[in-house]
Amino acid sequence: MHTNIAGSDASSIRFQGHDLVEELIGKHSFTEVFFLLTCGRLPNATETRVLDACLVTLMDHGWTPTSLIARLAYDSAPSQVQIGISAGLLAVGDVFAGTMDGCAKLLAEGIGQADQDAWCRDVVQAHRTLKKPMPGFGHPFHKPDDPRPPRLFKVAAEAGVKGDYVALLQRLGRAVDAGYGRHLTINATGALAALLLEIGMPLAIMRGVSVVSRSAGLAAHIAEEQRSPTARQIWKMVEEEIPYRDPG
Amino acid sequence: MHTNIAGSDASSIRFQGHDLVEELIGKHSFTEVFFLLTCGRLPNATETRVLDACLVTLMDHGWTPTSLIARLAYDSAPSQVQIGISAGLLAVGDVFAGTMDGCAKLLAEGIGQADQDAWCRDVVQAHRTLKKPMPGFGHPFHKPDDPRPPRLFKVAAEAGVKGDYVALLQRLGRAVDAGYGRHLTINATGALAALLLEIGMPLAIMRGVSVVSRSAGLAAHIAEEQRSPTARQIWKMVEEEIPYRDPG
Amino acid sequence: MHTNIAGSDASSIRFQGHDLVEELIGKHSFTEVFFLLTCGRLPNATETRVLDACLVTLMDHGWTPTSLIARLAYDSAPSQVQIGISAGLLAVGDVFAGTMDGCAKLLAEGIGQADQDAWCRDVVQAHRTLKKPMPGFGHPFHKPDDPRPPRLFKVAAEAGVKGDYVALLQRLGRAVDAGYGRHLTINATGALAALLLEIGMPLAIMRGVSVVSRSAGLAAHIAEEQRSPTARQIWKMVEEEIPYRDPG
Amino acid sequence: MHTNIAGSDASSIRFQGHDLVEELIGKHSFTEVFFLLTCGRLPNATETRVLDACLVTLMDHGWTPTSLIARLAYDSAPSQVQIGISAGLLAVGDVFAGTMDGCAKLLAEGIGQADQDAWCRDVVQAHRTLKKPMPGFGHPFHKPDDPRPPRLFKVAAEAGVKGDYVALLQRLGRAVDAGYGRHLTINATGALAALLLEIGMPLAIMRGVSVVSRSAGLAAHIAEEQRSPTARQIWKMVEEEIPYRDPG
Repeated sequence: MHTNIAGSDASSIRFQGHDLVEELIGKHSFTEVFFLLTCGRLPNATETRVLDACLVTLMDHGWTPTSLIARLAYDSAPSQVQIGISAGLLAVGDVFAGTMDGCAKLLAEGIGQADQDAWCRDVVQAHRTLKKPMPGFGHPFHKPDDPRPPRLFKVAAEAGVKGDYVALLQRLGRAVDAGYGRHLTINATGALAALLLEIGMPLAIMRGVSVVSRSAGLAAHIAEEQRSPTARQIWKMVEEEIPYRDPG
Repeated sequence: MHTNIAGSDASSIRFQGHDLVEELIGKHSFTEVFFLLTCGRLPNATETRVLDACLVTLMDHGWTPTSLIARLAYDSAPSQVQIGISAGLLAVGDVFAGTMDGCAKLLAEGIGQADQDAWCRDVVQAHRTLKKPMPGFGHPFHKPDDPRPPRLFKVAAEAGVKGDYVALLQRLGRAVDAGYGRHLTINATGALAALLLEIGMPLAIMRGVSVVSRSAGLAAHIAEEQRSPTARQIWKMVEEEIPYRDPG
Repeated sequence: MHTNIAGSDASSIRFQGHDLVEELIGKHSFTEVFFLLTCGRLPNATETRVLDACLVTLMDHGWTPTSLIARLAYDSAPSQVQIGISAGLLAVGDVFAGTMDGCAKLLAEGIGQADQDAWCRDVVQAHRTLKKPMPGFGHPFHKPDDPRPPRLFKVAAEAGVKGDYVALLQRLGRAVDAGYGRHLTINATGALAALLLEIGMPLAIMRGVSVVSRSAGLAAHIAEEQRSPTARQIWKMVEEEIPYRDPG
Repeated sequence: MHTNIAGSDASSIRFQGHDLVEELIGKHSFTEVFFLLTCGRLPNATETRVLDACLVTLMDHGWTPTSLIARLAYDSAPSQVQIGISAGLLAVGDVFAGTMDGCAKLLAEGIGQADQDAWCRDVVQAHRTLKKPMPGFGHPFHKPDDPRPPRLFKVAAEAGVKGDYVALLQRLGRAVDAGYGRHLTINATGALAALLLEIGMPLAIMRGVSVVSRSAGLAAHIAEEQRSPTARQIWKMVEEEIPYRDPG
């Protein structure tokens, strides 16, 4: 049993077969080394550009459970910035921001189908029958269309991805509109699922990309909380709006 | 009361005054947008290069409490990758990886001193008297010298930083060797404290840079744990090596 | 919108309609007030005894992912005991200790069936066909039988529960042995699911009972870690046993 | 190297030298076994009554950062109740609920002083000079007096504690009022520090008692959130009250 991620001796540190000091620091970006550690090889220019686009996209979305939690936890443990960020990241779950997995699983399954149109129709039909939401589709605020996917598809095309997963997602989008009888936007996590599949990011770790991305947004929220506190005001608002009442 | 970090309406998302879709995705790297969200403006080339070097440096260090925790927590909640990463990040604390703060506080205090040599001597003397470790100095494994600081100083100089904080840290290093009567290496967190001060990263959020950086390493550890599990073996080793015994 | 859990004014604090100072402190145990806050009324003697038995049962199990994580996280952030406990509790998940939910869902569904034997056979058959483990059955170490369930059933009977859920679980156990053609023990989480249903604990919060219970065990592990540190030794063992190797 | 907390073989589980199934389940309460695991021996009736009073006191306080975080995190990861509780417990920190440590450290230091009145005066003076808040004194809402300490002192006296730490805390309270020239209430964490010292709970783990206690309150908040959701409403309020604005 061994690990390939990283190791060190007294005078050197290695990351996936590369010397950290000689080959990586100052020569490769955060995004490139993140790809290296996760995928086991340095990315090419296409992969770097696509991964950067993905990491930028989910970095923040203003007030969300993640930022609310991070600020409240920071305010309770101000000496330990990691508490605020970690507590917030726990909310990158099945409901918000962590939902790439579902769409990526669909796309990974659909990519090898002989008749993709039939497969898309079946997938939409199955979700409608089970009254399950289509992962990667719909958005509570961004209506009729999430502005991020078209930009992400353009960046990926310009960066030179093969484009099969993006095409499949768009095909699925047409099947969704037809099957539901109304337009449902491809959302950011759907588009990110397609892009990350294009660059070979393992499906099982995709939510990790959201987590890494959002950690940067939460650090920024905490930096702002340090300058302009909001946590006590949030607490006060809730106490006023949702008062205690004896049961019964 | 308002926030400058991020906001959205039905058709657009803004990050610190920039349109996410039009101005950031595909045009700026993760590192640049992280700087934007945290510092309120896009970085110049010097700042980007230095921040990338910092983020790469702390991304991982093989087996550490962070990676051990992340893998054990992942194994217990495999459907929720964010649990493994968040649990691991909680260990970016006062002991490992989160220790930039202390050195940065010293450097921020020392930079304005009229007689920096005298200040360095006093700081070393005070730490010796109180038997407190000098933040940013010493390393349990990397002896006599941590290989990362010289590379970081070189990258920063080539990137064009002014260099005052790096010079002060090196000056402090000479005072440490003289005061303790033996060589103590400047360690990675010490060097990172100096570099982040050079690019104007707020002192209070510096530990957040470690957290963001390490989140990428932990995602990689979890990706490897998915392919080559270690958690059960770790558990078994501990059970064998540290058995239960009735007290008394 | 309001909350019934707790509220306060300048001179008093109320918990679910009871004055904390006048009616609860010194008059009711932790277990009774936990039941009050969660279920909205003070428990009777039967309910208290059963909930105490449940809370004691899962409090600890020696070396587990929860205790390993708690000790490693404590060692990295020793000034913040809550970090160690919280990090450990994150591992009360779908794999260990948090698995009451599945068995409770089965029992809640089966309790109203006209022909419980037929339902038990069908449930076992369905799990075998789907190759899904039967929640509440089997244990990696406690073979052939987990010692806790018989004791829990005895305590519940003596405390005066109605016993329908316990009887259903035992019936299901006979169907499991018949269906799999070999004996699979009812495990502790299965027995706890039955007992918590007997006392009316809402199914959706059952994992919370495990979390509360385990928090006490993790506090004890951290107290021992403070007296007799193990974290560095665990780290060292892993570094030796699972070394870094360049990939390829 | 070994552990005394808990261990098991195929047919039994031991907690600090006691057989879990034969000696603890159904025979001892949660509170008693928590004391056993943490302190290494079963408590007597005095200790149990005092620990129960402590655990009940801090179990909840309505809307606090802990309950806000727990509900928001639960809403984002509803399949994993442990996420909500753990995220909330991270806020049992240096600011709220986790502040017993400071007062306990003072009391542990003062108890052996020859002239306790002089020591009290000096402690108050030192805190005033350094403009540091007196740990265990003052409360933002409960003015002029926190209603919990008098009740806790009464319960402890009736339970039969020796009373030296309680007396010292009250003596310190008189010195606080004299030194500050106005009345500052002994708060709940101050009283709990004194009571936990009375029963021999190790100082270093006291914050753990708060964490265990609060875990029960957070489970109750999540149970209520499942019945009557508030998280989306809280999020909406914050978005309206603290809007995004472009910087500059």
